[in-house]
Amino acid sequence: MSMYAIGVDIGGTNTKFGIVDRGGKILEQGRMLTNAQETVQGFISELYDHLSPLIKKTGGVSQFAGIGIGAPNGNYYTGNIEHAANLKWKGIVPLAAMLQEKFSMRVKLTNDANAAAAGEQQYGCAKGMRDFITITLGTGVGSGIFINGKIVLGHDGFAGELGHTIIRPGGRLHQGTGIRGPLEAYASATGVRETALEMLKENPSTPSMLREINPTDLTSEKVYECAVAGDKIALDIFQFTGQILGEALANFVMFSSPEAIVLFGGLTKAGDLILNPTREAMEANLVQVFKNKVKLVFSNLKEADAAILGASALVWEED
Amino acid sequence: MSMYAIGVDIGGTNTKFGIVDRGGKILEQGRMLTNAQETVQGFISELYDHLSPLIKKTGGVSQFAGIGIGAPNGNYYTGNIEHAANLKWKGIVPLAAMLQEKFSMRVKLTNDANAAAAGEQQYGCAKGMRDFITITLGTGVGSGIFINGKIVLGHDGFAGELGHTIIRPGGRLHQGTGIRGPLEAYASATGVRETALEMLKENPSTPSMLREINPTDLTSEKVYECAVAGDKIALDIFQFTGQILGEALANFVMFSSPEAIVLFGGLTKAGDLILNPTREAMEANLVQVFKNKVKLVFSNLKEADAAILGASALVWEED
Repeated sequence: MSMYAIGVDIGGTNTKFGIVDRGGKILEQGRMLTNAQETVQGFISELYDHLSPLIKKTGGVSQFAGIGIGAPNGNYYTGNIEHAANLKWKGIVPLAAMLQEKFSMRVKLTNDANAAAAGEQQYGCAKGMRDFITITLGTGVGSGIFINGKIVLGHDGFAGELGHTIIRPGGRLHQGTGIRGPLEAYASATGVRETALEMLKENPSTPSMLREINPTDLTSEKVYECAVAGDKIALDIFQFTGQILGEALANFVMFSSPEAIVLFGGLTKAGDLILNPTREAMEANLVQVFKNKVKLVFSNLKEADAAILGASALVWEED
Repeated sequence: MSMYAIGVDIGGTNTKFGIVDRGGKILEQGRMLTNAQETVQGFISELYDHLSPLIKKTGGVSQFAGIGIGAPNGNYYTGNIEHAANLKWKGIVPLAAMLQEKFSMRVKLTNDANAAAAGEQQYGCAKGMRDFITITLGTGVGSGIFINGKIVLGHDGFAGELGHTIIRPGGRLHQGTGIRGPLEAYASATGVRETALEMLKENPSTPSMLREINPTDLTSEKVYECAVAGDKIALDIFQFTGQILGEALANFVMFSSPEAIVLFGGLTKAGDLILNPTREAMEANLVQVFKNKVKLVFSNLKEADAAILGASALVWEED
């Protein structure tokens, strides 16, 4: 039985790669700039030059089950990266096929949010679960869904865009899509910042430490710091964010009845400040049969490792 | 290869049963009262007495692949009916196991909404599709979801309650659940009636044929008749209902990226009056990658046959 998997996380700036065992231990890792080379062939050559010595060091190709890749707009069905806005490679790039030829290994590819879910199932707090959802609360809101033990891809490979589901019809405008009221407009770092600006404006007479911060420097981290210090508006911001997130999670639960929802990403640093209102709003909006059943937890994977782990986990997935 | 399946649809009042071939032709059928017998054993005996001669007539047990049952609160995993409010049998009833013993056939059981989806996949307009959603717009809003070729059941067997997802947070109270703003409070026959009462009240100076109907007699059918006759408020009611339904469908699409959404049930009689605003609102709320891809269609199964067909289709499902 093959012992190791390679995980490659292709981001807009950096590409991280690592060699991972079945238990989720990263034996070797490294990184390179994603857009240093002009062509995808150049990228693959550079990646090969980085990985080859690590593969040799770990016993050679025969010890490897394959390569898993998390990439923006990665399509699991085709192995292609399709029209990724942040990458230099335009159009449709058959990255999985190209890597398969170069490395003589099986290659699986999907988007980063699905890879994160695979990582939770293989190594994290959804270990062995067949039905669960991961939500990444970062700059945006990403999601990966498992149903019946498999990543939900949909008929075209693009399923699982829960950050774009509408939770406040006619509500806040999403700058990227031009659509009003999606979850991502509220439950992301960007959303928390916008909520802060709105609440400060709407409550001009409420004192707040947030007023001492230059609006351009007002981040979700700053809101968190002020909330921990007991600032009323900062606390209200997390209450409001959790309320909306919890309502959205209730909707997801009534769709697929997952065993757990795993939260990941920057906003989870707020801990109970975000978790408690989220859980309350979720439970309040669930019909009886779903109440007090779903585990709502934070990921226990180290943020620095999660992307490599997630990508590598694709290799161990059921087909 | 077995030629036939038995479909049994257990409703609050009637139980319908039929013998169905692989193509969806109902060869024999009948019905009985669900609650005529005091015990579930009595129910099974009566069902056996009805079905036995039909099974013999169709070539005997060896010609049959099994029995599929659609029942309120039917749990696919366990084969149990669990705490069904409208049935005489209280608690947890192991109906599949009991029928299996009585009939010496394989028995599969699920709720009626999931059975309806199985029927669409086997015989209807989702034939052969692996990813689709059926929405029943009746007195309530039911749903059945297929992902990767299988019914979505969730970790506990209760997934697919899309009628309870919140689409107007803080909105109309759902009388049954006490929760505000779920899809079912709007996109059901009951919801259309409530919308009618609200709109008539909110627009006292707009003339409408609906005002000539006694409020207790105001049904979604009456609203449809008035809309067809060009009544402005009646037309607005369908526009409003379609808007909300379409927004909800957009959310479902961004969850599972289905190839099709199949609408079924009483409200679909309104045809384009409901379909057009629904499609418009759905497309308007989809992010680019999902636009103009999802087939939004009405079921082509006869309403009188659909329940038996759906139940029988469970027998042909992948395990």
